[in-house]
Parts: sequence; structure tokens; C-alpha cells
Amino acid sequence: MLKQIAIVGVGLIGVSFALAMRRVNPGLTILGLDHDVASLSMARQRGAIDGVATAEQAARADLIVLAIPVRQMSGTLAALQPHLAAHTVIIDTGSTKQDVIAAARATLGPRAPQFVACHPIAGSEQHGAMAGAATLFDGKSVVMCVSEDNNAPILSIARAAWRDVGATVIEMPAALHDAVFAAVSHLPHMLAFVLVDELASRPNAKLLFEHAASGFRDFTRIASSSPVMWCDVAMNNRAALLSELDVYIGRAVELRRLLADADEAQLFALMQRAQQARERWLAGQLDEFNDPSV
Amino acid sequence: MLKQIAIVGVGLIGVSFALAMRRVNPGLTILGLDHDVASLSMARQRGAIDGVATAEQAARADLIVLAIPVRQMSGTLAALQPHLAAHTVIIDTGSTKQDVIAAARATLGPRAPQFVACHPIAGSEQHGAMAGAATLFDGKSVVMCVSEDNNAPILSIARAAWRDVGATVIEMPAALHDAVFAAVSHLPHMLAFVLVDELASRPNAKLLFEHAASGFRDFTRIASSSPVMWCDVAMNNRAALLSELDVYIGRAVELRRLLADADEAQLFALMQRAQQARERWLAGQLDEFNDPSV
Repeated sequence: MLKQIAIVGVGLIGVSFALAMRRVNPGLTILGLDHDVASLSMARQRGAIDGVATAEQAARADLIVLAIPVRQMSGTLAALQPHLAAHTVIIDTGSTKQDVIAAARATLGPRAPQFVACHPIAGSEQHGAMAGAATLFDGKSVVMCVSEDNNAPILSIARAAWRDVGATVIEMPAALHDAVFAAVSHLPHMLAFVLVDELASRPNAKLLFEHAASGFRDFTRIASSSPVMWCDVAMNNRAALLSELDVYIGRAVELRRLLADADEAQLFALMQRAQQARERWLAGQLDEFNDPSV
Repeated sequence: MLKQIAIVGVGLIGVSFALAMRRVNPGLTILGLDHDVASLSMARQRGAIDGVATAEQAARADLIVLAIPVRQMSGTLAALQPHLAAHTVIIDTGSTKQDVIAAARATLGPRAPQFVACHPIAGSEQHGAMAGAATLFDGKSVVMCVSEDNNAPILSIARAAWRDVGATVIEMPAALHDAVFAAVSHLPHMLAFVLVDELASRPNAKLLFEHAASGFRDFTRIASSSPVMWCDVAMNNRAALLSELDVYIGRAVELRRLLADADEAQLFALMQRAQQARERWLAGQLDEFNDPSV
């Protein structure tokens, strides 16, 4: 049973994790660490944290949750490392995994096996301590990229923590994780940022945004996401994201050609394939999708 | 006061229009016309229509609502034309306007002034009679592209009809309408269709869709839209859409370059501009957007 946890980064994810933990473990002491004093104050007001920790104090908790942008992982781990207790388990919540694992190996040295790389597939375009919610992880998946260094007791603590906050753990190699999420998450975020920036930069932006409706609102919801977090994700998953962008640009150029050629049959076929695939996905008919393992 | 209206195309829009009209005018007779018998039956079950009309009967209604894919407008107008009463007002609900106005001029001849081109900015990725709702137009805008042929009494009937179903009419020239909606609606639809089709076509599609989450769901919501409707929109607004696609592809290529160059400052600036623009839009701060008329 965990007695004390430290949340590093008391934004949406960190505060949600703390609030969710309190539901199953009300006796837990939760300390917060953040460079932003207002966030710490808000996290405390919301009952997410009991107090503020120094890096030294945080490093002795039973569990440390790193809920910070991925390019802050290295510096944060380096600050914790000298004080880390032998029993402390560290999990992160970053959207990219190969980079975070490399940072943990480089900074933690002999303590590296205490770090378990995790990515909860839960979030919101909302960010900050105010947006946190005890239910954020309920029924959601957490991708865990287990390293050969991670021993069974450490993994067991990390798995139990995610179960406690309502999530289900899925294991996946880090390289595969980064490739999959480049396609289904990082690419759409980039495409949404680009569309909003393009329209907002035009001389007639006011007119355009006056007539943007619910389709535009949903398509661009993820363009309201944190630029700090997403610039980090893009930079740290550059190779996979560049590859996805190249493929997508190629497909957009192909669509342009179909339209220029007035190739109605191909245009309709593309739309119909997309519509049917999305309906299959919504209906949970995943077995109808291509699967090389079958 | 309208006594009889004819809804041509009893899908999402047609059924919603009928149900909304019934709220304010319960004595109204509403007839439906559709090539799909099951849709007519559903529209009747839902209380949207009182009965089925032939083209000849529909053409004598006080108001005809054309709620059909835009490339069916011409054929439908041609079928109605020989029977059109002098007092009948026709409105459409298509997402493109220059094409529909041209079709009306070409087919209606001397009756062309009775046609008022309209585009309700309301919809859903859901389609069909089942998806119709009396509240669909409440608080929504309808773009009306008034022609110099349309006289005051005709426009007054068309405007009253939209007011009756809960919408607010905005006037805009048809060419401007088509350019604006190519940017804020037609382009995002194409981008969403392309993303879903691309991922669904891959050998590891099952794995990708297993891990697609809420960001992907909202980004691609419009890819569940009707392929029939959207193929028509793309084909009928080709020039404006091609121009938008070219600009967007150029911006995506630029983003790719920023990423390849690891130009973090520009990447962050792009994301921050987009995020702030979207927040301004959500907050209704339209006056902070570029406006050439100011």
C-alpha cells in the first residue's frame, strides 16, 4: 500500500492522478512539485495535494508521477536522482516513450530500473490544475513500455497505481508506441494546429471564424491543446512524425489530383472507405481491420 | 401563414426542418418526396410528414424545401418545374451555392425568381431520417444568397420559414459563401476523410484504431458524414476547394520543414498562434481577428 506519492507537474494529468488516487486510498499523503506556484496553490485548493515538496522530499516518496512535458523529463529526473530512495518507483505520463526512456537511462544510472515508462491514453485539450478530474483515467488505457531492467516488484507497483486510478495497462515496445501515436494522435494534432493557424492568419479571418461551425469546432478541438506540451511531443517524436507527415501530404496531394481530374468515382470511393472504417471503429468492430498477425 | 409544405429529401435536414416547423405551425400539412421508400416511411413514423407527394403535388405547395445532395438539385428542379404554382417558394439547403443557383436559373426559366438559395449552418455527421431533430436549427445561422430576381414577398416567405424553424438568416453573395465554406467546412471534411482512409488502408490498421482515442475521434467526426453528400460538395465547389487544398498542402509542407529543421521556436509559435486563435474564437472574441473592412 502506497503511503506517500509525489506528483511532479500539477496540471491536468497530475491533478487528475492525485484526485483519482484519493478515491481508493484516502489515507495517502500526496505532495506536489511544480515550477508554477499558482498551479500548486490550485492543486492544493482542489484537494489534489496535501503540500508542496522539494525535489529531495519528492525523491523519497513511494511513487513519483512525472506529469510534465516530455522535454522536461531529463532535467527533472536529474534533480531527483541524487536523493532517490531505493524503494521509490517513478512513472511518467508522457506522450512519447523512446525519448523519455533514453532520458531516464542517461540520468538515473543505477536507479534506472526504478523508472517505468507509461503513457495514459486520456487527456483533454483543456490543461492546467483546474481541468483535472478524478474520473479522467476511468476506463482508459495506459501504454506501459517495460524495460528489461524493470523487475517484477517495481512493475507490480506501477501497474497497481494505474489500476487504482481506474485505468487498464497495455504493454507495448517503446518504438511501436511512438510509431502508433505519431499516426493516431501526433499527426492529427499537427494538422489541426496548421488549419487554425492558416485561417487565423488571413486578412478575412474574422469572416471565416464567424462561419466556422460544429464540424470545424470538433476537427480543431485538439488545436486548443498546450503548445508547450505539443511542441515537445513533435520535437521528441520527430522521426515518426516526419514519416507520418510525408505520407499524409502524399495522400492530400492525391486527393487534390482526384479533385482536379474530377475523378468522382475515386473521390466517392475514398470518402466511403473512410466513412465505413470510422463506423466500424465506433462500433468496436476492430477485427474487421487489417491485422498482420492474423 | 403556410398551409402546405413539401420536403424533398427526407434525410437529416429535411426531417429536422419538418419537425421544427410543426412546433410553430401544428396545422401545417407536410408532404415528403424521396426516391427512398424506407426514408419516407421513417419520416412518416417520426411525424415529420403527413404523406408522400408526387413531384406534381409537391410543386403546388406553398413552400418546397430541397434537402438533397447538391448535384441532385438540377434534376429535381427540372421535375418540379412544369407543375410549379405561381405562389410556390422554393428554398434549398445545399452546402454549395453558386452551382445550385446556376441549376435553378437553367431549369426554372421564368420561375427562377421563386427560388431562394439557402445554406443552414447546422448538421451532423449523422444522416438519414432517424437522425432528424426538431431542435437542429435552433440558434443556428442560415446563409441566404439572394439573387436580384428574388422579390420582397418571396424573400419574406423564405426568411419567415427559417425563423420558424429557429434559425437566423445571414445574407452573403454566393461566390463569397462558396469560398468561406471551402475553407471552414469543405477542406476539414476532406482532411478528415483522407486521414481515416489512410490509416484504415494500412496493414496494421487494427493496431492503429485500437489506440485511437478522443482526439482522433473528434478530429475525424466529420469523416462519418455522408459520402454522397460530400462527394457532391467537393465536385460542385471544386475551384474553391482546390485552392484551399493547395494552400493547406503548402502549410503542411512548411510544418514538415520546421520539424525537419528542428526549428522549435517557429514550431512553438505556430502552435501558440493556433491555440490562442481557437480560444479567441470559442470566447466569441471575433473582433480580435483580421478584418479587411475595419
